[in-house]
Amino acid sequence: MNARLQKLTDWMKEKDIQVCFVSSPENVFYFSGFLSDPHERLLCLAVFQEEEPFLVCPALDKTDAKNAGWSSEIISHTDIENPWELIDKAISRRIGKAQRVAIEKEHMNVERYEIIAEMFSGAEFVSAEEKLRKLRMIKDAKELSIIREACALADFAIETGCAEIKEGKTELEVLAAVEYALKQKGVSEMSFATMVLTGANGASPHGNPGLTKIKKGDFVLFDLGVIVDGYCSDITRTVAFGEVNEKQLEIYETVLKAQKAAVEACKPGVTCAEIDLTARNIIADAGYGEYFPHRLGHGLGISVHEYPSLTETNSLMLEEGMVFTIEPGIYVPEVAGVRIEDDLAVTANGVEILTKFPKELQRLNNHL
Amino acid sequence: MNARLQKLTDWMKEKDIQVCFVSSPENVFYFSGFLSDPHERLLCLAVFQEEEPFLVCPALDKTDAKNAGWSSEIISHTDIENPWELIDKAISRRIGKAQRVAIEKEHMNVERYEIIAEMFSGAEFVSAEEKLRKLRMIKDAKELSIIREACALADFAIETGCAEIKEGKTELEVLAAVEYALKQKGVSEMSFATMVLTGANGASPHGNPGLTKIKKGDFVLFDLGVIVDGYCSDITRTVAFGEVNEKQLEIYETVLKAQKAAVEACKPGVTCAEIDLTARNIIADAGYGEYFPHRLGHGLGISVHEYPSLTETNSLMLEEGMVFTIEPGIYVPEVAGVRIEDDLAVTANGVEILTKFPKELQRLNNHL
Repeated sequence: MNARLQKLTDWMKEKDIQVCFVSSPENVFYFSGFLSDPHERLLCLAVFQEEEPFLVCPALDKTDAKNAGWSSEIISHTDIENPWELIDKAISRRIGKAQRVAIEKEHMNVERYEIIAEMFSGAEFVSAEEKLRKLRMIKDAKELSIIREACALADFAIETGCAEIKEGKTELEVLAAVEYALKQKGVSEMSFATMVLTGANGASPHGNPGLTKIKKGDFVLFDLGVIVDGYCSDITRTVAFGEVNEKQLEIYETVLKAQKAAVEACKPGVTCAEIDLTARNIIADAGYGEYFPHRLGHGLGISVHEYPSLTETNSLMLEEGMVFTIEPGIYVPEVAGVRIEDDLAVTANGVEILTKFPKELQRLNNHL
Repeated sequence: MNARLQKLTDWMKEKDIQVCFVSSPENVFYFSGFLSDPHERLLCLAVFQEEEPFLVCPALDKTDAKNAGWSSEIISHTDIENPWELIDKAISRRIGKAQRVAIEKEHMNVERYEIIAEMFSGAEFVSAEEKLRKLRMIKDAKELSIIREACALADFAIETGCAEIKEGKTELEVLAAVEYALKQKGVSEMSFATMVLTGANGASPHGNPGLTKIKKGDFVLFDLGVIVDGYCSDITRTVAFGEVNEKQLEIYETVLKAQKAAVEACKPGVTCAEIDLTARNIIADAGYGEYFPHRLGHGLGISVHEYPSLTETNSLMLEEGMVFTIEPGIYVPEVAGVRIEDDLAVTANGVEILTKFPKELQRLNNHL
């Protein structure tokens, strides 16, 4: 059994849990090495205290699951088979009645829960998620090295994006050039839909890139991430095209000051809330508090949003091996949207900044 | 109230349901016009028999939700607010105790279900999904016209991909060129991760494009789709680069024959199972039954996989306005993978084929 599964079964023994269903594709990947989006089909891992775990996957993925390195039993199901009957049998072969069953309550849907609840009638259902998140929250050396690579590609993407900015180019044209350059380097998937937003569009924290043309005096906001071997990076940079006005500059400098202060505050033992508030207070003191409507950052790894969550109320303390973003933003409708985001890894004494593209305002003046 | 919500409340009255929680982003979009990926944040629509519905969304999306045209109440929540308290109050203002509550059992997770179950303690929870799927399954004229546009862009993508194929180019290089060309046309999102697979890679129905180089004698398989105004297209074509061998040709011709026969069998009143079996039997008779491990097709719309599901056991009858894929495939490991997929809309007497790129084997012979 691999070391990650060992930690899970240790927890199961401690909590008197007889079976744990790991059902989110990210967690299945974490334990099995098999990364797959099953869409509406069933993919899960059943883990027991002593007995051999088994992986359930769609028939068309069975070979891929084996090739990914999963060497224990695989129960595959075609589109016309009922996977639950197969699971029921496989469990009966391993254990008798279960008193406590762990599931991913945030991932498992009610439909599947009702089936499992009937299968283990009378059992208590406990959430495995908190444990799984804590396991995944602390990255090992191999994970860190993959994330470093994903961050270097994110830097490259921003660099490419800046070089592509020209008067009259659309957001989507710049975006296309960035993703084209990444694919040339072998990147097959982004962490999320790449954002290139210009002018007023940047003032929506969740804007969609479109056919708006970049013009002199605009900020251009890039928010993007690259997936490498199943791990995500996530970077945001806001750059100036041509001359920007004083109000825009003030907003930029406020976000930058908040971002840098928060990064500097990171080290083991400090709470997530302290980090969030370090940035939030600077923004509020500058009079922009109401224009920073989201948390400071989020953990990063197999998921682009995972533990730890950097909110102003999270008392969780930073620990070595945590990886997260710090991304304060100020969005003043019709004026400007600025966000600056780095990925960081907590070290023994402080942090390693994984994204390295400059944060001082880049003033681009490319010719037509 | 819009016509779609009206149909939902009619159903609620018929089934004596006092409140319906619509929670999947796709269904929220269907009823509200607001399309958003809330990640782990809460997005939902609460619908009542007579009272005003309300939309719950993250604070940072409130403006976007309004701009999308939602004119009823919006309850927005920041990352540090508990949205359930706000929801509880908003419901109390509208109705008293609910006896029957409809939820999306396939979308709602167990964690949220436990909260709602406590909020409506003693209520019966019924699934809204079957009803929602059936509403979405029949497309109106506006939806069909958007999907037609998405399909035309999918055709263009295949055309672009074919023109990009050259000896020694990698799968990802071809893929990048296709997506670049689409972005130039204003496409900001694909229906799913684009696939360009060559040689042995094509024999995995869920392969991942990578740095494998295209070489003479290979099949190249494209599977991709484009999102236009929230609606997906989905096309697969397999083309030959240079001279392919007899076995490859035999596989191609078998898939083509099966695909065409299934398309021709489509018209109102025929069951999904009959359509699936039309193709499946042709493939089985040719001796490749075991190499066609998935259903024949799936419905298509706001989701890339929706109702109807074309399996060999689905007795659902085709109706005018349904839109789905027909995509038989044969995957012989180490030999060849071929899949041919069209999108179709059922008409009063037959079908309209929405994807129009030729299906006869394209033999490409581009120079170095």
